[in-house]
Amino acid sequence: MHASTMVSALELVGLYVFATSGALMAIQKGFDVVGIVVLALLTALGGGIVRDVVIGTAPPAAFRDVVYLIIPLAAAVVTFFAHPLVRRLSFPVLVFDAAGLGLFCVTGTLQALDHGLGPVQAILLGVVTAVGGGVLRDITARETPALVRVETDLYAIPAAAGATVVALAYRAELPMPVVATCAAVAVFLFRIIAMVRHWTAPTAITYRNP
Amino acid sequence: MHASTMVSALELVGLYVFATSGALMAIQKGFDVVGIVVLALLTALGGGIVRDVVIGTAPPAAFRDVVYLIIPLAAAVVTFFAHPLVRRLSFPVLVFDAAGLGLFCVTGTLQALDHGLGPVQAILLGVVTAVGGGVLRDITARETPALVRVETDLYAIPAAAGATVVALAYRAELPMPVVATCAAVAVFLFRIIAMVRHWTAPTAITYRNP
Amino acid sequence: MHASTMVSALELVGLYVFATSGALMAIQKGFDVVGIVVLALLTALGGGIVRDVVIGTAPPAAFRDVVYLIIPLAAAVVTFFAHPLVRRLSFPVLVFDAAGLGLFCVTGTLQALDHGLGPVQAILLGVVTAVGGGVLRDITARETPALVRVETDLYAIPAAAGATVVALAYRAELPMPVVATCAAVAVFLFRIIAMVRHWTAPTAITYRNP
Repeated sequence: MHASTMVSALELVGLYVFATSGALMAIQKGFDVVGIVVLALLTALGGGIVRDVVIGTAPPAAFRDVVYLIIPLAAAVVTFFAHPLVRRLSFPVLVFDAAGLGLFCVTGTLQALDHGLGPVQAILLGVVTAVGGGVLRDITARETPALVRVETDLYAIPAAAGATVVALAYRAELPMPVVATCAAVAVFLFRIIAMVRHWTAPTAITYRNP
Repeated sequence: MHASTMVSALELVGLYVFATSGALMAIQKGFDVVGIVVLALLTALGGGIVRDVVIGTAPPAAFRDVVYLIIPLAAAVVTFFAHPLVRRLSFPVLVFDAAGLGLFCVTGTLQALDHGLGPVQAILLGVVTAVGGGVLRDITARETPALVRVETDLYAIPAAAGATVVALAYRAELPMPVVATCAAVAVFLFRIIAMVRHWTAPTAITYRNP
Repeated sequence: MHASTMVSALELVGLYVFATSGALMAIQKGFDVVGIVVLALLTALGGGIVRDVVIGTAPPAAFRDVVYLIIPLAAAVVTFFAHPLVRRLSFPVLVFDAAGLGLFCVTGTLQALDHGLGPVQAILLGVVTAVGGGVLRDITARETPALVRVETDLYAIPAAAGATVVALAYRAELPMPVVATCAAVAVFLFRIIAMVRHWTAPTAITYRNP
């Protein structure tokens, strides 16, 4: 119960931070309060909703417990009023975002595995859970998704690595609470190091050897 | 039965007008007849399909009765041939669009409540039903969604207000046919007044006090 | 069994080619390897996933057999390394794409009919199966969907014609294996001829008589 309480707490922090990134994007694009709320909700909940629709659990988790809606709405309100302050906190926001990335790719993968999906499918859904909301945010705001841009520090790749570890450990019947915790922490650290060192993913080969 | 016939009739008018707005956008962007049909269908049916996927009723209402497909297709055909006339009717179109907004936010909220979703979730789904199709239209046409643009007269906010009234009345076990009718009419009037007076939603606070 | 083996083989070829078109688009837009994988998966699987979510079969076919994920991933890897060669093969790619169009509009329509949807709904889902992935590819890459652009050689219209033939034959209880094969081949040829002769769909009437 201690562990699951911590997971829940981390999950809410992750949702809050994801929603904040949506709200900040909306403010940056000059959207009104409706746009701020829309992007906050979409960024925080979009990935998990897609995962649950694919798995076939209706309604999605985001609609089962009202706290999943309250947290992003709170983030939208706080960002609406305090966005210059929030912006100055951009490094802490990125750190919590990395924590959300680690947590959601692990929990998303586990949920897919628990619903009987195969390991490759579960890895894909774990990554979708973690990064899907950000893609929906960018598409709605008419930005090229940060996820696919070559300037973006590694984001999907740490998530995919963590999801792969979880899926392999599940197959090997290792003790999941330990594995899941380690994987989430590893994804978090991988993402932080990628940010600090500006590691980026390669583009197609011959762009470099023309 | 009289009341439900009127709801059905209004629903079809609403779908027709939403589809017309999609078809007009497609023509304005220079899309071909495929684009006109795609945007007509997406605008009219997109919000309801998202709602039904989230609620978990498959197939969505849009695919259960063929009339829900026929009406947007008819709107696409009429707009294809008569779009200069349709454009000149832009005020009537906006009035019917406001009627659709009022109707769909109320029926969407009720359907979510009837499927056991909580009040906050039902309000969100009511708003999604009413405004989701327009967002999908704008994204597909590569426009910034009108919904989030600061120049747009209030649109989501009347829908959210109406959905909230419906959810509260449902909780209070008030007689729903009366409440639903009043809420839909109130959303309609709120939207019309917002259009006439060009009420817009606020942007984030410090954009005004730089 | 011979026939179904051929359908499966064609389906995998179709997925491979659709994924290749997604990967090529990603490379052309300068996306990194994550973008290449995302667009490959989305283009190949997007239409079928939307169809299965609407029909209500969860998880969608794309997540039931791992081969449906492996094939697009393989296409992404091959395109990543060999894209100049793949590009030089653009005509063969377009020919296989036309084969995929024919196959997927027919199988999509049949699956919708088998799940009890009406003929108009099944036609729409058949077309969505065939063209939906390409639309999601273009939206994610911030391109106006090729599907709705007036310069695009007929693409959705052959698919709609083939889906209509299948739905009518299903109604008339004709022998489906024969009809389905003929319809898929006809869509393929229709698309090829439309490409060679640059047939395009009309835009709204008065654009021609101003």
